[in-house]
Amino acid sequence: MLVVMKAQATEEQIGAVCQKIEELGYRAHAMPGAQRTAIGITGNRGEVEPGTLDEMPGVQELIRVTKPYKLVSRDVKQENTVITFAGTDATFGGPGLAVIAGPCAIENREQAMAVAEQVCRAGAQFFRGGAYKPRTSPYSFQGLGEAGLQIMAEIRDKLGMKIVTEAIDNESLELVEKYADVIQIGARNMQNFSLLKRAGRARKPVLLKRGMSATLEEFLMAAEYVMSEGNYTVILCERGVRTFADHTRNTLDLSIVPAVQRLSHLPIVVDPSHGTGKRNKVTPLSRAAIAVGADGLIVEVHHEPDRAMSDGIQSLYPEQFAELMKQVRQIAPVVGRTVPGIGIHSRTSETLPAQSGVRAAISPSA
Amino acid sequence: MLVVMKAQATEEQIGAVCQKIEELGYRAHAMPGAQRTAIGITGNRGEVEPGTLDEMPGVQELIRVTKPYKLVSRDVKQENTVITFAGTDATFGGPGLAVIAGPCAIENREQAMAVAEQVCRAGAQFFRGGAYKPRTSPYSFQGLGEAGLQIMAEIRDKLGMKIVTEAIDNESLELVEKYADVIQIGARNMQNFSLLKRAGRARKPVLLKRGMSATLEEFLMAAEYVMSEGNYTVILCERGVRTFADHTRNTLDLSIVPAVQRLSHLPIVVDPSHGTGKRNKVTPLSRAAIAVGADGLIVEVHHEPDRAMSDGIQSLYPEQFAELMKQVRQIAPVVGRTVPGIGIHSRTSETLPAQSGVRAAISPSA
Amino acid sequence: MLVVMKAQATEEQIGAVCQKIEELGYRAHAMPGAQRTAIGITGNRGEVEPGTLDEMPGVQELIRVTKPYKLVSRDVKQENTVITFAGTDATFGGPGLAVIAGPCAIENREQAMAVAEQVCRAGAQFFRGGAYKPRTSPYSFQGLGEAGLQIMAEIRDKLGMKIVTEAIDNESLELVEKYADVIQIGARNMQNFSLLKRAGRARKPVLLKRGMSATLEEFLMAAEYVMSEGNYTVILCERGVRTFADHTRNTLDLSIVPAVQRLSHLPIVVDPSHGTGKRNKVTPLSRAAIAVGADGLIVEVHHEPDRAMSDGIQSLYPEQFAELMKQVRQIAPVVGRTVPGIGIHSRTSETLPAQSGVRAAISPSA
Amino acid sequence: MLVVMKAQATEEQIGAVCQKIEELGYRAHAMPGAQRTAIGITGNRGEVEPGTLDEMPGVQELIRVTKPYKLVSRDVKQENTVITFAGTDATFGGPGLAVIAGPCAIENREQAMAVAEQVCRAGAQFFRGGAYKPRTSPYSFQGLGEAGLQIMAEIRDKLGMKIVTEAIDNESLELVEKYADVIQIGARNMQNFSLLKRAGRARKPVLLKRGMSATLEEFLMAAEYVMSEGNYTVILCERGVRTFADHTRNTLDLSIVPAVQRLSHLPIVVDPSHGTGKRNKVTPLSRAAIAVGADGLIVEVHHEPDRAMSDGIQSLYPEQFAELMKQVRQIAPVVGRTVPGIGIHSRTSETLPAQSGVRAAISPSA
Repeated sequence: MLVVMKAQATEEQIGAVCQKIEELGYRAHAMPGAQRTAIGITGNRGEVEPGTLDEMPGVQELIRVTKPYKLVSRDVKQENTVITFAGTDATFGGPGLAVIAGPCAIENREQAMAVAEQVCRAGAQFFRGGAYKPRTSPYSFQGLGEAGLQIMAEIRDKLGMKIVTEAIDNESLELVEKYADVIQIGARNMQNFSLLKRAGRARKPVLLKRGMSATLEEFLMAAEYVMSEGNYTVILCERGVRTFADHTRNTLDLSIVPAVQRLSHLPIVVDPSHGTGKRNKVTPLSRAAIAVGADGLIVEVHHEPDRAMSDGIQSLYPEQFAELMKQVRQIAPVVGRTVPGIGIHSRTSETLPAQSGVRAAISPSA
Repeated sequence: MLVVMKAQATEEQIGAVCQKIEELGYRAHAMPGAQRTAIGITGNRGEVEPGTLDEMPGVQELIRVTKPYKLVSRDVKQENTVITFAGTDATFGGPGLAVIAGPCAIENREQAMAVAEQVCRAGAQFFRGGAYKPRTSPYSFQGLGEAGLQIMAEIRDKLGMKIVTEAIDNESLELVEKYADVIQIGARNMQNFSLLKRAGRARKPVLLKRGMSATLEEFLMAAEYVMSEGNYTVILCERGVRTFADHTRNTLDLSIVPAVQRLSHLPIVVDPSHGTGKRNKVTPLSRAAIAVGADGLIVEVHHEPDRAMSDGIQSLYPEQFAELMKQVRQIAPVVGRTVPGIGIHSRTSETLPAQSGVRAAISPSA
Repeated sequence: MLVVMKAQATEEQIGAVCQKIEELGYRAHAMPGAQRTAIGITGNRGEVEPGTLDEMPGVQELIRVTKPYKLVSRDVKQENTVITFAGTDATFGGPGLAVIAGPCAIENREQAMAVAEQVCRAGAQFFRGGAYKPRTSPYSFQGLGEAGLQIMAEIRDKLGMKIVTEAIDNESLELVEKYADVIQIGARNMQNFSLLKRAGRARKPVLLKRGMSATLEEFLMAAEYVMSEGNYTVILCERGVRTFADHTRNTLDLSIVPAVQRLSHLPIVVDPSHGTGKRNKVTPLSRAAIAVGADGLIVEVHHEPDRAMSDGIQSLYPEQFAELMKQVRQIAPVVGRTVPGIGIHSRTSETLPAQSGVRAAISPSA
Repeated sequence: MLVVMKAQATEEQIGAVCQKIEELGYRAHAMPGAQRTAIGITGNRGEVEPGTLDEMPGVQELIRVTKPYKLVSRDVKQENTVITFAGTDATFGGPGLAVIAGPCAIENREQAMAVAEQVCRAGAQFFRGGAYKPRTSPYSFQGLGEAGLQIMAEIRDKLGMKIVTEAIDNESLELVEKYADVIQIGARNMQNFSLLKRAGRARKPVLLKRGMSATLEEFLMAAEYVMSEGNYTVILCERGVRTFADHTRNTLDLSIVPAVQRLSHLPIVVDPSHGTGKRNKVTPLSRAAIAVGADGLIVEVHHEPDRAMSDGIQSLYPEQFAELMKQVRQIAPVVGRTVPGIGIHSRTSETLPAQSGVRAAISPSA
């Protein structure tokens, strides 16, 4: 915390602020400048609760300095977190790019399987599909629930793809943890702290989407909630933020990728489908996401977008997705990446012990 | 839904779009204009899932027309919803303004009682205080939980104030429903649809805060979630939105008050404390909220902001709150309002039957 | 400027940053904290050009502290600037509220006179009307130019109202300075620094509208541009900012009124017409603007909005404006204000010496 | 324009609105739907001035449909506009990417030449440098003016690079037109319509930067201003928009690239330097800009960022720029592009006839 004094603040006023700071249990460092004095506050372990400092005579402004995150920070762990999955080469945060694809919602077995086979063949290692859908309207299709999860588990067994799907409350999280390989927390729940804590007690990696108006700090603090409960396998996901711009549904903020990579050791992927909300923008922004250095993509694909029960307007056709994968493979080497495949072959989930497949080394010392 | 065709779209392209619309089960209305043709779509009961219409040759753009909300709308219920409480004159949506005041968090019995007595004396009819705090950091004070609720129940018994407090998940909602008079859903949970549905099954009014980047439509749809489960006693609350502006913590959007009142029958109050995040802006913006026509205020007050465990920086001193109430009483008549008091006298909660105190007439016919 | 070091920064790294700061001609103040060290920079007269400091090993972040404005600041002049006009009681920044009203554009003599008479009768002291219109489309009506200015000068002669009108470039500014009493700089030109400098050399007060996405600091710096050329009579004007919210054309940010009043001695008025873009929101937000403490209003009024050549959709009818003035008069005393009238009586412009009517005492010592 | 009626609007109200529309000289198309009626308006050549339609009984909302731009639109010209320069292979909008590089400001001959030689060697075909600087503070360095332009002309003569530099008012535009090859209009002047019109009468291409909070439509309308005066050689430039996000100076909105390309035939380049404001984000976002399909880049480079008189914090070192060019060359073929070089060899400006070097075929028929 830094207290900036007014230009005409008197010595007495500066002294009073310093004294107040010391009374609150901190240390005050007065720095007289050419125009005004600033007073640094140190000695606090977390955030200073500024109380009434800014109302004291002569005070112009308070500026917060210390960042509140710990476990997510490179201050605590310098090397990248790499999340691996038993029985595949797929990772988040390793040299291989993670590609997650599938329909917005699981509508039925045939639809899910049709899409899965095509995205798997095109090179996606992860299958996504919503079983629990957070819809803006209570009258819209809300997902198949556990039946949807079972369909996805079957897809994993048949195709060897890993499953990513969203949990929207404690009840669904329990089931998602049971059936899926990665638990997605949606943008609307990024600050549902109760759900974040529950996810922090899960034994599966968590893919955390950035809230629609979350700052970088809030985004990292949401990940901190998950980690503070002991789950260090968090994958961040940029999916567009809300701005005045109306040519896309959200404004995809690709600059957060290098910004996260500078501050945090956690992997970050990009969702160009929700990030733009328009099919014809998904492929260009996917290329851009790889070029900017993201650890992967999450893309909506539907074999019959016309009949999709949600988000048909932003879903790629399977052939468009296959073409996208070609372009991703061409750009990957420029940023030192590869695109590991998983092939299409039958495997049973029994060979994948529940949690042992997830490895992420972190030894937080905070 | 309206399909805008390109200027050079051919007759064949226009015909193909109309045919597609009819195939999807709707009716198409082609309107040839000076520059281009637009095609209206009717016959749909809810939202049209636009699927691939926007990819058809000759299509420029799709524009959504029908609003998806029903129960919140004046289309369904023209007269204002008035929420009343047994044993008091306090209402939301009636001619009397509702004033909710109290500390950000319940810290202990002495603090809560000290603040409550002062805001009650100054004229607040509702006491607010957080027992469950959604904090950005997992390391910040998270609230006293049920012990906090018990302290507030005691305040109701002693002072006759009605209690407003936040629920953050299904578990806390159950307890809040038991102890409090109004269940608050915070801005971060405005699209926690699972929690909204649970609140819709509660037998107490719900105060729903606008999400940090919620449009008017999303805000109303969140209320629709609560109402769709049978709870018609919803109070909306503007608490500032996220913008580029950095002189306040959020940007208080007072224009949403008349906008809501035009579209919906639900009452709307304003929170200038979170809306600005700065003590010296709370009083001016409170005056403005009353002048714009809001149905009430929710204001943070702390008798020792210096020692507040959260949000001390935006809490009014009790004497500032008393001065604010004076100004509110002066502005109220300009907008045809009064400020009903409740007096300070002991009363027991036994005289307040759990739910019967809440009356809200709505007979949705959607 | 404050340099925040990483938690694991070494003593050598901290030393190197301090040395670099000193080499650049400033003083470095290292403040070791519990988690990390922050280094204050003082000795700079203006902004520090941070160059490559943020790339040095161990540096986490740079935080700017010193505000760059001088003449606009209460640091330089503590008492409010009051702008007066010879021959009237109208002021900006005095106890009397300034009310500016009129059509968006001057369309012809009859229209202008019809509106002027009605707003004058209702109590507006200033007449506004566009002679030069900055329109989004080059094909829209661009204003009458000098002919429009002449009509407004005639209105001043006849009614005694003072004239406020916009200049859009150096050429129009010269004419506006000649004919009008207050030179308006529009939101789109808030950072047209060339125009600001020219306005700074004018001998009439300048009403400066906030840019659509201007921070408080940028807004004040734009005023600083005008003042730095010698014109100390600047009136700030909030007119709504651009956000994601779509229920109004812009989001009126009333919190900037107390924020400006805390930092600057300049008067600030509010434009609820552009601030909302919808007729039915103008009156509520006008009341709110007065209640929040603004020094005045600028409101669009048209006697035949249906036939208005621009902005008809947000113009009040004259009778609505008269009703608004009644409400303004009721709220004014709550914030210690009055609404001075000017009456309707003929007067000639000869009695108003060009510039002597403007008095604003400021003796900047920066 | 579309008028959406309320659900309970009567036949009489619908009839009255239709009649009003016809009175205003348009045609009304009533479309009865399941819930409500919408009324399409056609027959208008430009924008409908909605006047008081939205105040009529039974009206819910007005929705604008027709886009106001003409010359910028693919409706008028389907093939891409390609801007070429005599004596080089450099183009905007052709298969070759345009790369513009140089310092924020021309500080002196040595600095400019040092940077120019290095960016030219690395492959930039265009040299940028500010002679007129729009600075937020009147006390900051404002540029060398004509002396700066002369230095840049010398660089063209010596290196064969084409010159891009900003004009900030009519006076500077005249000089920029004389000395430079491309006239830049900065973000702050995107709606300085007076300057846009002047640029529209210039005989050099115009690089138009997107305003900080400009929608796609406003951006295109600004280009329309230039084109409406007869200059069809406009290059659009995305440079980041203002949002709540604070990890970069602006939020670079790469999705506008495919959005512009869908609607308009004009070329669009990206400025990752202003778009992020941080050196360490320039290279990743430059890669992303090429991958998304932009027609080129404009990048700030300084050989001694520490001593830069402005924007040192976001300027690349020459060696970083050379590395960036390598990456650009690798990504270009993925999007079907090349990077034409110009070599380093002396040439005289006499061989470049003032305007004949610019060719852009457009035959607007609007």
